[in-house]
Parts: sequence; structure tokens; C-alpha cells
Amino acid sequence: MSSSSTAVQVIRCKAAVAWEAGKPLVMEEVEVAPPQAMEVRLKILFTSVCRSDVCFWEAKGQTPLFPRIFGHEAGGIVESVGEGVTDLKPGDHVLPVFTGECKECRHCKSEESNMCDLLRTNTDRGVMLNDGKSRFSINRQPIYHFVGTSTFSEYTVVHVGCVAKINPAAPLDKVCVLSCGISTGLGATLNVAKPKKGSTVAVFGLGAVGLAAAEGARISGASRIIGIDLNAKRFDEAKKFGVTEFVNPKDHDKPVQEVLAEMTNGGVDRSIECTGSINAMISAFECVHDGWGVAVLVGVPSKDDAFKTHPVNILNGRTIKGTFFGNYKPRSDLPSVVEKYMNKELELEKFITHEVSFSEINKAFEYMLRGDGLRCIIRMDA
Amino acid sequence: MSSSSTAVQVIRCKAAVAWEAGKPLVMEEVEVAPPQAMEVRLKILFTSVCRSDVCFWEAKGQTPLFPRIFGHEAGGIVESVGEGVTDLKPGDHVLPVFTGECKECRHCKSEESNMCDLLRTNTDRGVMLNDGKSRFSINRQPIYHFVGTSTFSEYTVVHVGCVAKINPAAPLDKVCVLSCGISTGLGATLNVAKPKKGSTVAVFGLGAVGLAAAEGARISGASRIIGIDLNAKRFDEAKKFGVTEFVNPKDHDKPVQEVLAEMTNGGVDRSIECTGSINAMISAFECVHDGWGVAVLVGVPSKDDAFKTHPVNILNGRTIKGTFFGNYKPRSDLPSVVEKYMNKELELEKFITHEVSFSEINKAFEYMLRGDGLRCIIRMDA
Repeated sequence: MSSSSTAVQVIRCKAAVAWEAGKPLVMEEVEVAPPQAMEVRLKILFTSVCRSDVCFWEAKGQTPLFPRIFGHEAGGIVESVGEGVTDLKPGDHVLPVFTGECKECRHCKSEESNMCDLLRTNTDRGVMLNDGKSRFSINRQPIYHFVGTSTFSEYTVVHVGCVAKINPAAPLDKVCVLSCGISTGLGATLNVAKPKKGSTVAVFGLGAVGLAAAEGARISGASRIIGIDLNAKRFDEAKKFGVTEFVNPKDHDKPVQEVLAEMTNGGVDRSIECTGSINAMISAFECVHDGWGVAVLVGVPSKDDAFKTHPVNILNGRTIKGTFFGNYKPRSDLPSVVEKYMNKELELEKFITHEVSFSEINKAFEYMLRGDGLRCIIRMDA
Repeated sequence: MSSSSTAVQVIRCKAAVAWEAGKPLVMEEVEVAPPQAMEVRLKILFTSVCRSDVCFWEAKGQTPLFPRIFGHEAGGIVESVGEGVTDLKPGDHVLPVFTGECKECRHCKSEESNMCDLLRTNTDRGVMLNDGKSRFSINRQPIYHFVGTSTFSEYTVVHVGCVAKINPAAPLDKVCVLSCGISTGLGATLNVAKPKKGSTVAVFGLGAVGLAAAEGARISGASRIIGIDLNAKRFDEAKKFGVTEFVNPKDHDKPVQEVLAEMTNGGVDRSIECTGSINAMISAFECVHDGWGVAVLVGVPSKDDAFKTHPVNILNGRTIKGTFFGNYKPRSDLPSVVEKYMNKELELEKFITHEVSFSEINKAFEYMLRGDGLRCIIRMDA
């Protein structure tokens, strides 16, 4: 099936290259090598900017690795496949994913985990697993990959284990946002918190991930969805995602967990923490009702703080769980999330607040830096 | 049905009264008033000593409340019932329980909780809920109740919500130990940790509760059950409960969670903490495998320490849950635990290491204080 004319050839195409930390991306012509064993080369049609692209581009605290091609939320079409690839063929519609599913390791074989030993996200690695080299170059200078996806390029090479084959009828300019943040928040609610119909759910942090968690609560039939954020401006947008009440911790003298307990006769049924702030994590745990409450941690902390609580809070029948990528196994589970959009259960349009052409990609970074909107779709053909 | 001749009369009988903290119990003749609304009077046939009887008798750190009749693990027969009691009649075989199930509150109506709002254990209350008074007296001096059960008496009065009606064919001298500790440990494994067949389970603390947790792991088909205790003498006994390996934290220079991770290729599938030590709680959490590991906290801390861990330990797909009385609802669920014994799935004989007559009850306290054996059955008729 890899008989397409471009299959074994290097492709020259446009890519947005980050040459230095924090400096605008530069549109360059890059060479994209053919896929090696267990790799596929994708033509990216749409991509969007997620916070971690911006964090690793700023490289404040992260290992700097430049020049690099960022990008990991995207939708595309398989252009060619490497040796040993049997699950995908040219023309398949796919979502590349920043973490993978080898289907062989203990995590992939466990029903309970999606943290693949082989393909678990690695933000410090800028090369492909197969040969430890990059598939991108400019005049033979290698350009590093980012989390195995590097979707800010018209063509990219990805390990087959990091590619979800989806319904070809699904509009890639919408479902591309399911590659990362939206699935992370949605799955945290649907797969981990699992609120029952009629329950009360608290969501900490009303960015794209938190709003996706709220969307999950709405889909689950929660009767009250309480959004917690330090930025009161976010409440109007949050209403579209089913958030019924809003609490700004700045408006209260007591800890927000106490405010929530008073609002809910003892605590919420489920909480989902999407900020990564250690104080929010503790509040998210302590605000759930004793006897049955479940708190789910999604946000990744930037500092080296400890999670601390009195053990009696745990002993009184509370549960705390961590989740990664909403507990979705990328290849096995993402196609069904796309179907949730196709059957109108999941509303993705609400997340898409901006759209730019590929040549304007730095605008998409500015929107994210300013906290303006949720997702900016980048059209690669424009 | 309350037409038995003793029903509305005061009963005079023997009880072991604790007059002062830490002083031997004294066998006294007490008066036991008739049961009031929603109460039942029980003839206790067998009782055993659990650690919390000893803790509240010593009253080091606990609110002292004397004179008091301790005892909360027992088996007996309903002697008479008060107004409004329809679920029980004289002659029913029952287990009194230190916590209750009103069947009306949010906890009782929730499938996920057993922490009844009305009848949740209260160690500071020495009187009955109905009128705030005691049913025990000696020459009109009231003698306080303990956790609503006070089974160190030939007769006692208990709220109907704290009484589980069981199979009358079940031998009360065996199943009486299901009133507290054994069900707590067993349920922590079967109802909360839920290890799959073939999994690896760590149990922290090899007293009666921990060994009941191990028994639950054995029943679940765990392939490795690792017991952790500071007392190496406990390993021989633990083998009878399916414990396959033993780790004494004192034998290692590194934290026991690291020792366990090395023994198990990254961590155990499930852990159950039955000591109440804060360090053991942290180790029990950090020793579970990322991606799928679940830690269950059972032991109640005596000190005011904080549970502390790095949030990444949670985010990497680990879960921590607290449980109370093994998540069993006393009235709804205990009868089925008795059936597990009746059909030979659960082996209770292993827990019963001593037996004494009622007049020798102080010996049973000594066994517990010395850590000699697991459960001492007290025969009330001897």
C-alpha cells in the first residue's frame, strides 16, 4: 500500500520552525524524510495550539531543545507508511497523539492504564525512537521533533503507535482538537470521575481542559456544575459548557473547599482539577463529600510542592485519582470520541474560538499567551 | 412479637464494668432497661475484644467516659424489641455493629457510602440516641454505653439500625468476629481495592485487620500477597492467611515503597494500609504501580500528621481511597459476609486464637495489650 509516488522520497514542504526559545516561529522549507519501520508520514490539514506547545517554546524551566518543530493537536491524512505498518494505509484520516499505545506493554495490556511504556509522552526527546534521529532537516541540519508529533509542518513523521485512525467522514478542522486537551478534560470526567446523572460536579480551572471536563459533566447529566477560577471573565464562556455556578476563590476569606461544602450540603459528588496549582489540588480533594466523593487530578504542577491533606479526609470515604490524557488509549479509544462528536453528543464547535492560516501561526501563539479564547485552528492549506 | 415475658421489664444480669481508665473490668450485676422506640434488647452469647475497646478503656488521648460497658464485636439473639421495630423479632440471630444504617439518609441511600448520618460511629457518646440516656444502671447510677453496642454484658440495648440479622444456622462463636475488625479488613480488599485474579497485593500491618485484608486478597485470587510489618514474628501466622512474602521496613536502608517497587517490577497492583501510621500510609500509596495502582487506607491515625506526597505520584494514574468498616452497610451487607463463612469461602477459625469465659474477660484484654494472638472469644454463659 506504500506505493504512492512520494512514499520513499524526501518531501520538501513548509514548516513553522522555532529557532530559539520565545522567538516567533519562522516559516521555512524543510525536508521530511520517509517513514522508517513502524512509522507513518502524515499530511497535516489542521492543527491547533495547546498550552504545552507554548510552555516548551518559552522553555522557562523546561529543557530547551532548538531548533524544533512544535505542534501536537492536529488532524491529517496518511501519506505513506514504513515497514511493518499494517494498521494504516495512505489516505486514512488520522489524529496524531503526543502519547502512544504500543499494544504490547503491561500498560497497554491493562484495562486500567493508558501510560504505554514504549510511547508514553517524552517532552525531552526530540528524535524518533527507531534510530534516535530526526526526520526533519534544513540543508542537512536536523530540526528536532516535539512529543513525537511536530504538527506545525505540512508533513510530519509519527510512530504508528501515536496515530488514531478515525471516521473519514469526520471534519478534521473540528476533531483535530481531540488530539490532546479536549480529550484530556472530557475523559477525566467520563472515564475517571464518572459522575452519575443528577450529581454535583466541581471543575477547577476554566481553560480548555476544564471546560472539556465540564462538557463531560454536562454529557453525564450532572445537575450542578460549579466552575472555580481566579478569572471571573471566564464564567460567561463557561455557561456554554454547562457550568451552572461560579466561585472565585478571591471573593472569599475562607478556603474554597469550605465555600463549596456550604453550597452543597457537605461537599460535591465529584471534582476535577485542571489548573496544576497545588492549592487547587488540595481544595479539589477536600471539597468532595465524605462517604462517596471522588476527586480527579488532571493539571500538572509546575513547582515541586507536596500534596498535603489530613489522612482523616481520605479515611472518611473519599477517593483521589490521577489521570493522564483522560485515561483514553490513543489508538483504541479516540475513534469513539470522534463518534461522540459525529452523533452530536459532544459539542466541539464551542471550543474553537479562532482560526488563522498557517502563515499566521504566531497569532495563534499570541492568543494562547493572552488567554484569548480557547482553541485557534490553523489551516495548513491557507 | 414483643410479648415475651421479659419484654417490658428491666433485666438484671452480669456485665463487665470499666469504672476507671486502665483499671481491670469488674463483674457487676447491672439493670438493663427495656428497649425504647427503634431499639432492641439483645442477649449476648459471644463477644470478642477489638483494639478500640482497649484504646477507649486506656483513654490515652480519648475522651474518658466512665463508668462504661465496653464491647462491640459480638453475636447474640434478640430478646425483645421496642416500638416501631418491624425488621427484627425475639429469637432472631444477630450481630450488633458499632456503626449503623438508618436506610433513610443520603449515605444510606447512596450505593457508594456506608457512613450513615444518623448512626455513624460516635465514640464520645455514652447514651442512646432516643432519649440521650443510658439503658444500664447499678443502683440507679447510669453506666455509659460504648459505640451503641456495649456487648460486655449478658444483655444490652442497641438501636435497630446497628443490628444485622443473620442466618440462624451460623455459629455465633465464630461469626461474632465479623462485627468489626475482620469485616473492616476483608471489605477493604473485596469492596474497595478489588484486586483482580493474579494480581500482587501489599498489606501494611499484620494484625487482625491486616490479616483479614490478606484473607480478602487470597479469596480474590491474588498471586502474590506481600505483608509489611515491623514485627517479624507475625510472618508465620500471616502465612495461614495467604501472605506469600514478608518485608520488614527495619531490614532496609531505603523507604519500603522502593523495596516493594524493586520486588514487583515497578509497584504492586493494590495496597491496603492497616496500621494507621502516617509513614505507612505514604508508603502504601507510593508503592502502587503507576497507571493502575490503587491504595486503600484503613488504619486510623492517632497523631495529627499530614498525608504528604508529590502530586506527580497521583497524576501518574494512581488512586488512593479511604474506607470505613470495609464499605459494608451493616444491615444490608453483613448477612452476605456471614454466608461467605457458611459456604467456606471465608475462613474465620484462623482469626480465633484464644477463648475465655466471661468471668475471665480481663485476660482477653491482656492478650490484646501483649499482642498475643488475634481474637479472643468470650463465652458469656461460662
